[in-house]
Amino acid sequence: MTAEPIERAITELSRLPGIGRRTAQRLVFFLMSRREEEVAALASALLDLKHKVRECAVCFNFAEGERCEICSDERRDSSVVCVVEQPSDIVTIERTGEFRGRYHVLGGALSPIDGVEPDDLHVEELLARIEREGIDEVVVATNATTAGEATALFLAEELHRRFPALRVTRLATGLPAGSDLEYADEITVSRALRGRHAL
Amino acid sequence: MTAEPIERAITELSRLPGIGRRTAQRLVFFLMSRREEEVAALASALLDLKHKVRECAVCFNFAEGERCEICSDERRDSSVVCVVEQPSDIVTIERTGEFRGRYHVLGGALSPIDGVEPDDLHVEELLARIEREGIDEVVVATNATTAGEATALFLAEELHRRFPALRVTRLATGLPAGSDLEYADEITVSRALRGRHAL
Repeated sequence: MTAEPIERAITELSRLPGIGRRTAQRLVFFLMSRREEEVAALASALLDLKHKVRECAVCFNFAEGERCEICSDERRDSSVVCVVEQPSDIVTIERTGEFRGRYHVLGGALSPIDGVEPDDLHVEELLARIEREGIDEVVVATNATTAGEATALFLAEELHRRFPALRVTRLATGLPAGSDLEYADEITVSRALRGRHAL
Repeated sequence: MTAEPIERAITELSRLPGIGRRTAQRLVFFLMSRREEEVAALASALLDLKHKVRECAVCFNFAEGERCEICSDERRDSSVVCVVEQPSDIVTIERTGEFRGRYHVLGGALSPIDGVEPDDLHVEELLARIEREGIDEVVVATNATTAGEATALFLAEELHRRFPALRVTRLATGLPAGSDLEYADEITVSRALRGRHAL
């Protein structure tokens, strides 16, 4: 019904998360209406993701050189390290502008069912960094999911055992800002209660 | 804050219609998690849109060779031609499975304000086709917008003047299937009234 290259571009775009066939089709017809340079710029930007981006040798964030932007930034506070599951979590935390320390990407969360054990995550590298870099505090910012919480507990135990003087903290759980109590689930509310603070 | 190639891919993806920065970021992190071959397949599919697709020499639909799939299909009824604004409209009509004729893409709709005159559309080529191909009916399927309606009126006049025996039809306007009368605008309802048929 339509030219094969169009069909193929629609199929390829539909593989992306949240992009159905209709959206993919709309994108393809949009790209057909653009100049070749614009489409080439998009295609080369996508290819460069795999060709030019690698893992930071220190924290496993995405990096263009050997070290990521944050590990190369001398102004960052190297005494605090925030442990996250994925590099995308760094973007989320950076967006707040609240954190001036460094990061460590685990590369996932513990999940025995999926076969993810401590050895599959960058845990050893975190322990080595703490030993080497004179870190005072580790902020555990894994997700508030079952796997993320299990990982946080595991890390806290391991860190306390190995570095008794180290401060280990966890992101607060509670009501999301702007949310109605009425729509909050029981676990969120019970954690918000337990984490209540004086006014 | 993040590697330059990641930033650039996010920027390029955000240029696409309906894709904001957050969505672009999600797509980029998804692509980072895929194998290089998968990203390369997407990038090359996008490039091929501009390298391998051209305009059909007959109807101006997108085509891989000289003629599009529909113009090359001998089983299509060549006595009926459906006139549309854009190649994407062909996909919409084909999806119904109701039309077995051929198409003609105008490449837009008349809009004096935007400087789109009959000479800017593939109107001459349509007239030449009617003369050459022995077409019995032209279905005008331009959009039900001001520009689309103006184009339909212009085409009807021109076609009647040049080919008095030709049947010229227009897609019906009326209530969209599954819609509530309560939410229909006045123009749609008045056209639905005028276009009423016996039950």
